[in-house]
Amino acid sequence: MNQIICTVDLVLLTLKEGALQVALLKRDKEPFKDVLALPGGFIHAEEDADARGAALRVLKEKAHITAPYLEQLATFSGPARDPRGWSLSIVYYALVSIDIVEQVGHSGRDQIRLVDVDKLMQLPFDHQAIIGMAVDRLRNKSQYSSLPCYLAGENFTLPQLQRVYEALMGGELNKVSFRRKMSEMGMLEEVDGRFGLAGAHRPAQLYRLRPEHREHLSLLERGL
Amino acid sequence: MNQIICTVDLVLLTLKEGALQVALLKRDKEPFKDVLALPGGFIHAEEDADARGAALRVLKEKAHITAPYLEQLATFSGPARDPRGWSLSIVYYALVSIDIVEQVGHSGRDQIRLVDVDKLMQLPFDHQAIIGMAVDRLRNKSQYSSLPCYLAGENFTLPQLQRVYEALMGGELNKVSFRRKMSEMGMLEEVDGRFGLAGAHRPAQLYRLRPEHREHLSLLERGL
Repeated sequence: MNQIICTVDLVLLTLKEGALQVALLKRDKEPFKDVLALPGGFIHAEEDADARGAALRVLKEKAHITAPYLEQLATFSGPARDPRGWSLSIVYYALVSIDIVEQVGHSGRDQIRLVDVDKLMQLPFDHQAIIGMAVDRLRNKSQYSSLPCYLAGENFTLPQLQRVYEALMGGELNKVSFRRKMSEMGMLEEVDGRFGLAGAHRPAQLYRLRPEHREHLSLLERGL
Repeated sequence: MNQIICTVDLVLLTLKEGALQVALLKRDKEPFKDVLALPGGFIHAEEDADARGAALRVLKEKAHITAPYLEQLATFSGPARDPRGWSLSIVYYALVSIDIVEQVGHSGRDQIRLVDVDKLMQLPFDHQAIIGMAVDRLRNKSQYSSLPCYLAGENFTLPQLQRVYEALMGGELNKVSFRRKMSEMGMLEEVDGRFGLAGAHRPAQLYRLRPEHREHLSLLERGL
């Protein structure tokens, strides 16, 4: 009935040296063999519980990353995006801290390449448009949610978290109002007896996401 | 390679007597023949330019509605949602004013049934979950966008538009701040020399969406 190619693709975003970067992998088969592209693969109806399950499987198999915070971005479709024929790709985006990406980079056989999202080269399929939409969504959602916390690592100080938000939103935030908004969302807890360094090497309390907030976003009624 | 059923479904929402209603149609074939469900259909790779094109075609064929404001909601997938096998449905939602639905109701052979979204009966497939997500998205987006304008008809007074926003957001809005926010989005224009009725039968200026704002949402930096 339908001859439609059904795939998932993943936009894996991280912050490195204050710049938003996307993870690309060399494709291991045609079309576009050996060209850098988003990690992706076919949906396997016989084993995947749903498209999200396919995305998690692909992420684990190809990027060796398990269970990050994953959101469905959108589905891209049409006859021209894949030279093999009419295709659709259900795209998920995931935010991972640079520690996790670098850990994987050291162990993995498939080399992840991080590329600054503002300096993307030509990419196969419609991957450039996909990344553009993911970056827009992330930047927009950063204004009123806990989404950026997933880029801050497991433990972080409030100044570190503020720098993550600022890097995503592209501007300085007021410290007092930033802290009030974070506390309003109620998703952070102190890490007992652990301190990091704030400005001028003063010790600063370390925080982490509360367990019940790790898989669901917290939202602000009014943005930052 | 993949035996995946690829469909689109449409959540068509309207406001009737202040209540948000969803358009359902009796299914004309198995599974669930003669049962009310969301309008939907297979993607036709040979004729549809993309999933959005399939959604517009289905909407026209089954609900006789052309070119409304359409947004992709999400893709629902898995082995259990359709008795025919592993399936995915790319879901779009559309907002249409009650005038348009009723015009179609009078002419169409397929009878659209409007059901209050808060009083839904059991529906086939995962259509209840789909409608729930569409309603959440609409209510959430109403807070900071021009989205509700698509429910207000072609021409409307500001008090009428405010009642649409209030019906969606479930609470009263301050008139002065509502008007300031509408003006901030800049999407309305006066309809020359046309007046409707405001409270106590005083005449009130009629407005409509500016042509350049009919296909793209206007957004507020800070919500209503």
